[in-house]
Amino acid sequence: MRTQVAIIGSGPSGLLLGQLLTNAGIDNVILERATKAHVLERIRAGVLEEGMCDLLDEAGAGARMRAEGLAHEGIDLAFDGRRHRIDLAGLTDGKKVMVYGQTEVTQDLMDKREQTGGVSVYEAANVAPHDFDGASPFVTFDKDGVTQRLDCDFIAGCDGYHGIARKSAPASVLKTYERVYPFGWLGIIAEVAPVNHELIYANHPRGFALCSMRSTTRSRYYVQVPLEEKIEDWPDDRFWDELRLRLPAATAERVSTGPSVEKSIAPLRSFVAEPLRFGRLFLVGDAGHIVPPTGAKGLNLAASDVRYLFDALGEFYGEGSQAGLDAYSQRALNRIWKAERFSWWMTTLMHRFPDTGAFGQKIQEAELDYLVHSRAASTSLAENYVGLPY
Amino acid sequence: MRTQVAIIGSGPSGLLLGQLLTNAGIDNVILERATKAHVLERIRAGVLEEGMCDLLDEAGAGARMRAEGLAHEGIDLAFDGRRHRIDLAGLTDGKKVMVYGQTEVTQDLMDKREQTGGVSVYEAANVAPHDFDGASPFVTFDKDGVTQRLDCDFIAGCDGYHGIARKSAPASVLKTYERVYPFGWLGIIAEVAPVNHELIYANHPRGFALCSMRSTTRSRYYVQVPLEEKIEDWPDDRFWDELRLRLPAATAERVSTGPSVEKSIAPLRSFVAEPLRFGRLFLVGDAGHIVPPTGAKGLNLAASDVRYLFDALGEFYGEGSQAGLDAYSQRALNRIWKAERFSWWMTTLMHRFPDTGAFGQKIQEAELDYLVHSRAASTSLAENYVGLPY
Repeated sequence: MRTQVAIIGSGPSGLLLGQLLTNAGIDNVILERATKAHVLERIRAGVLEEGMCDLLDEAGAGARMRAEGLAHEGIDLAFDGRRHRIDLAGLTDGKKVMVYGQTEVTQDLMDKREQTGGVSVYEAANVAPHDFDGASPFVTFDKDGVTQRLDCDFIAGCDGYHGIARKSAPASVLKTYERVYPFGWLGIIAEVAPVNHELIYANHPRGFALCSMRSTTRSRYYVQVPLEEKIEDWPDDRFWDELRLRLPAATAERVSTGPSVEKSIAPLRSFVAEPLRFGRLFLVGDAGHIVPPTGAKGLNLAASDVRYLFDALGEFYGEGSQAGLDAYSQRALNRIWKAERFSWWMTTLMHRFPDTGAFGQKIQEAELDYLVHSRAASTSLAENYVGLPY
Repeated sequence: MRTQVAIIGSGPSGLLLGQLLTNAGIDNVILERATKAHVLERIRAGVLEEGMCDLLDEAGAGARMRAEGLAHEGIDLAFDGRRHRIDLAGLTDGKKVMVYGQTEVTQDLMDKREQTGGVSVYEAANVAPHDFDGASPFVTFDKDGVTQRLDCDFIAGCDGYHGIARKSAPASVLKTYERVYPFGWLGIIAEVAPVNHELIYANHPRGFALCSMRSTTRSRYYVQVPLEEKIEDWPDDRFWDELRLRLPAATAERVSTGPSVEKSIAPLRSFVAEPLRFGRLFLVGDAGHIVPPTGAKGLNLAASDVRYLFDALGEFYGEGSQAGLDAYSQRALNRIWKAERFSWWMTTLMHRFPDTGAFGQKIQEAELDYLVHSRAASTSLAENYVGLPY
């Protein structure tokens, strides 16, 4: 088998890159270890920057997002018993974010790929990139018990943090940067109306809480928990009680509760690999970098990686220029590190850390107070939250 | 002896408060442990916010500051071999800072006090505040071997971090918050022209450096050093070499060097006492709080404390109202904590910390890059640097 771009991973970054390439007449094949249904079960991010929405439109997969997604013009920060709205649109010349689940994005991109005849190989086992330091890379994989070879010009590693792409990078070149946070997010989804029409990020002495949503009838709530917590110790009632304790009283009493349809604990991590290019192998999205979910940057960073890599591949095939490919890693990393900083900062600001100490706690309170009362500081939060320019 | 307000400490906060009270016809006596000459030898801060300059004018002691001080409209941040100007005035509707040494402020206030007949007792030993939890406080001190008693309505503790005022506060009520930084500032003064007409704050892999000044012919330079460093290991040549290594090359080559006329190592500390009022005893300036010098907030916070306390005393004597006195501690602390946050943040941003780690270092670099390229983030720095509103 031969293609121009071999894409490892059928998550949103692989699908988005593949669709943009297909639309541009650049041949590509997606290899995915899991089944299509399994990929669609992954419940992750749900807040899209305008840059990502535009990219979905460009891929021809934005129609349902535009119709069903909820455009949000602000977020609330809650602390000390009160809520303070950050007017994202008002502080950023009208920029908004779109609440639309990653599962829906994936579904729309899969549908579009099917309509346009894109080739995806699911249940491709033992995927492995080869010879990407030379001019003739290829990827091997096992399908139905048979080892196959996919020759290509380039390999895009869109296979996430645990994927093979980054692990295949030469250890002598790869540098990694990491921070692990001493807590996780216990999250649920429930088929109830959200407590507020916009997101509420709450800093409370009992820990962080987030009131998010997937739609006007589907709520997504989180509470910060120690990493040792076990999901079986959190029946729904306990979750709802804990959530309400962390919200201002007037908000807490308006939370609609109901049985959870999903419940899980996710650790928080910051991670960056450098560089993001190894010869003809490129890392995209979670394969190259992870942010803690505070700030909702993970999926959006994958989208900007796709933007840079698609443009670079377009230049290569269209004009024969290597310039974009050569610039990819640095261009992507410039934006990634700014989003890493923002995600780290917002995580630090909104969570309670076991080792902060009394001085650090007072500094956190002073920063929250300053932030919501300073137009400059609020604007800085807003411009990062809606997404720095590509 | 009897007065209305007994002021402990003849540094800039005690002198400023005393002068404002004197001008308003409120009797006050300053008790100072050291000699006048010794007080004048203290070389400290040198960057005044507009609020403090206005207060000096109001005290009638601003003329020389207005004539000889250097109004600065910006600062430079240097990192990665380049300088980036933060346009303080342009980002804050024209606000500036005034470079004018604390020694000069003290001198001007002492001169004014002498002209207006204010009473200052120097070399007052064993100063001690008494009965400030009741309606008839008094201060005892030894002068020329004789113990004296100064009866008063109120006691203002303007005697610095090591003074008796805070130590006299009841331990059951006093809370303190502290952070000690793992480095100090080695500073020199030299009678040479400054390398730049504005201050340069430099973040370099070898550590922080600051190019400051006292006048157009008197330079003030600092380099971050480990706390264990000894001044005798830093002859002038070594200092100048180290300073130049931490500046962008084009800046380093323009540094004028000369013999130091002052050289010292100061530790960096964040400290806040709460509350700042204990009955009829009030803590003002360093007696209640310390900031690391990055951001130049120490003297300016003392000035805002003086502003709040003077207004409160004026209301008490003028209108018989206790409201300002009751509000003093919280009003002052609101501004103090914001300045503590800014000073901690700027210290964290500009210094190299021994335990930052690779991820933290990259976050610092991303923040610097974001800061100088974002108008919102630059404005946030600028509005804090020129001083948040009183």
